[in-house]
Amino acid sequence: MKIAVDAMGGDHAPQVIVEGVERARDAYPDLEFTLYGREQEIRQYLKKDERITIVQTDVVIDGNESPVKAIRSKKDASMVLAANAVKSGDADALFSLGSTGALLAAGLFIVGRIKGIERPGLMPTLPAVGGGISSFNMLDVGANAENRASQLYQYALMGSYYAHDIRHIEHPRIGLLNNGTEPHKGDDLHQEAFKLIAADKSLNFVGNVEASNLFNGPADVVVTDGFTGNATLKAIEGTANTLLHLLKHSIMDAGVKEKLGGLLLKQSLGGLKTTFDTSAYGGAVLLGLKAPIVKAHGAADSEAVYYTVRQIREMLHNQTIQKVVAYFSEQAKIEKKD
Amino acid sequence: MKIAVDAMGGDHAPQVIVEGVERARDAYPDLEFTLYGREQEIRQYLKKDERITIVQTDVVIDGNESPVKAIRSKKDASMVLAANAVKSGDADALFSLGSTGALLAAGLFIVGRIKGIERPGLMPTLPAVGGGISSFNMLDVGANAENRASQLYQYALMGSYYAHDIRHIEHPRIGLLNNGTEPHKGDDLHQEAFKLIAADKSLNFVGNVEASNLFNGPADVVVTDGFTGNATLKAIEGTANTLLHLLKHSIMDAGVKEKLGGLLLKQSLGGLKTTFDTSAYGGAVLLGLKAPIVKAHGAADSEAVYYTVRQIREMLHNQTIQKVVAYFSEQAKIEKKD
Repeated sequence: MKIAVDAMGGDHAPQVIVEGVERARDAYPDLEFTLYGREQEIRQYLKKDERITIVQTDVVIDGNESPVKAIRSKKDASMVLAANAVKSGDADALFSLGSTGALLAAGLFIVGRIKGIERPGLMPTLPAVGGGISSFNMLDVGANAENRASQLYQYALMGSYYAHDIRHIEHPRIGLLNNGTEPHKGDDLHQEAFKLIAADKSLNFVGNVEASNLFNGPADVVVTDGFTGNATLKAIEGTANTLLHLLKHSIMDAGVKEKLGGLLLKQSLGGLKTTFDTSAYGGAVLLGLKAPIVKAHGAADSEAVYYTVRQIREMLHNQTIQKVVAYFSEQAKIEKKD
Repeated sequence: MKIAVDAMGGDHAPQVIVEGVERARDAYPDLEFTLYGREQEIRQYLKKDERITIVQTDVVIDGNESPVKAIRSKKDASMVLAANAVKSGDADALFSLGSTGALLAAGLFIVGRIKGIERPGLMPTLPAVGGGISSFNMLDVGANAENRASQLYQYALMGSYYAHDIRHIEHPRIGLLNNGTEPHKGDDLHQEAFKLIAADKSLNFVGNVEASNLFNGPADVVVTDGFTGNATLKAIEGTANTLLHLLKHSIMDAGVKEKLGGLLLKQSLGGLKTTFDTSAYGGAVLLGLKAPIVKAHGAADSEAVYYTVRQIREMLHNQTIQKVVAYFSEQAKIEKKD
């Protein structure tokens, strides 16, 4: 299994990427890597090049560029070269900490969509503290500004494959993010999506779920349109960051009593932060593309990089994407016959 | 100024309502109240009936009923009687802790929409910890499952009046909740809403804002469609509740060290909770109806009731709704001339 790595994306590139990749290389003898980026910088951190090839390029896409334009004009960018390796079959998967928009554009225009999939969806893994589960998946959280109901139905199908193969859930519970739990809730889009998902008896559909209840684990996979999913994910991140920030300052900026209290609670508060740190679950997958294309957070550390590589290895090992491809080509055949 | 109060809505009715109303009555000599509900229960908590009239009814609308059906069939429900008092001019404003859906239905079918307003929007006040402000308003957070761009523009106008009159901000900064800050961002709805709001030079439009950044105070009024606003608000509430719950348990379920730490930090943690407790800002206003119709949280305490009454008094005092009415009838005249 060969993974093409954009070594220049993210806030701490290439250091955390090299460190995470070497750890994964040492843990999994079946993995090979090609790192695209500034060779000299990469070599500063690389301990040994066993099963690691470096392809030198100085060109990097940054987060402020127009994604489509950047992918089309910067033919030698680390991300573009990595995507080309997947397209040509030289690599099986693509991994980047760079711009989500650029990675989506590279996925769409270089690697390509799975036949039958209308729109890829971006799917992170988020923490849960109830319902007997420790995490859940949600898609689309922003690959699209607008979705059709049929696309939400496809997210339910792809999310179900993913939760089964990677999270080893036998019958993943699929929920639809909506503005109430009753079946008739929502706008036209979500009412139609509800009907489509509910009609497919191969799916374990648990109905509508609300954003207030996500952490209680009502579903293993939460399906949403890209606009609502984006706002929901960002509201979660913003609230968690604000609260943890306020908590830190209410301890540090206060008196001796509070500082001592903070010291005594250091471990507990650290645990709290860890619960809301999703890096152990890997990166966000662009589901619907012809290969595993996974984005880790720009601020990810080497541990998050390691976990993301492990996640990609699981997807390759379980042939998750191939199953999605097979499912949709089977559907196309059925539709052709009709 | 006379306020019609649905004394039977919410988790702790009528106790917290009676207590909050009496406190407001004592603080503001210009206020009169009519409380609709079970007189015997109300009198259990009422200290003196100065400027407080009770209208006896046993009928109550609960949160599980179909809102429109409940409003139409339960003619003697406390909420319906209170709304009728506003319609007939016996009261100037309506206040309830009951079902949001039923209150919206009562507002629409009994009190009525302001002429020219397409759809009322539900607007709470939320905490901010940055940008030099301590709170912001957001609408619509769920009065509608679907909105048009022209409705989002009307929310910008009404929100601006409110922030000016009630929060005393000279030129309220209006932001549009979107999936990125660049002007071209979003789906068709939000791109069109952006253009409409930006074109009105009477508004202090600061452009798009993201859900991750709301607490940093980028805008005094955040405009959003009811579906996205509902998910965003619920994601904020869910995340804050989950984090505070985890924090509490990481202290209480741990060892002596943690318990001592928690004790030392009691004040700081209480302050944290207070920051995220929006009751001091009053209730959520159903903007776009012919009178101030305000909903406090079902779990609100007597203090939240008091603050909500104060907020209603401000709206009456500043004639905020009348200003919105005047603005839209002026617009109608201009459109007629064109």
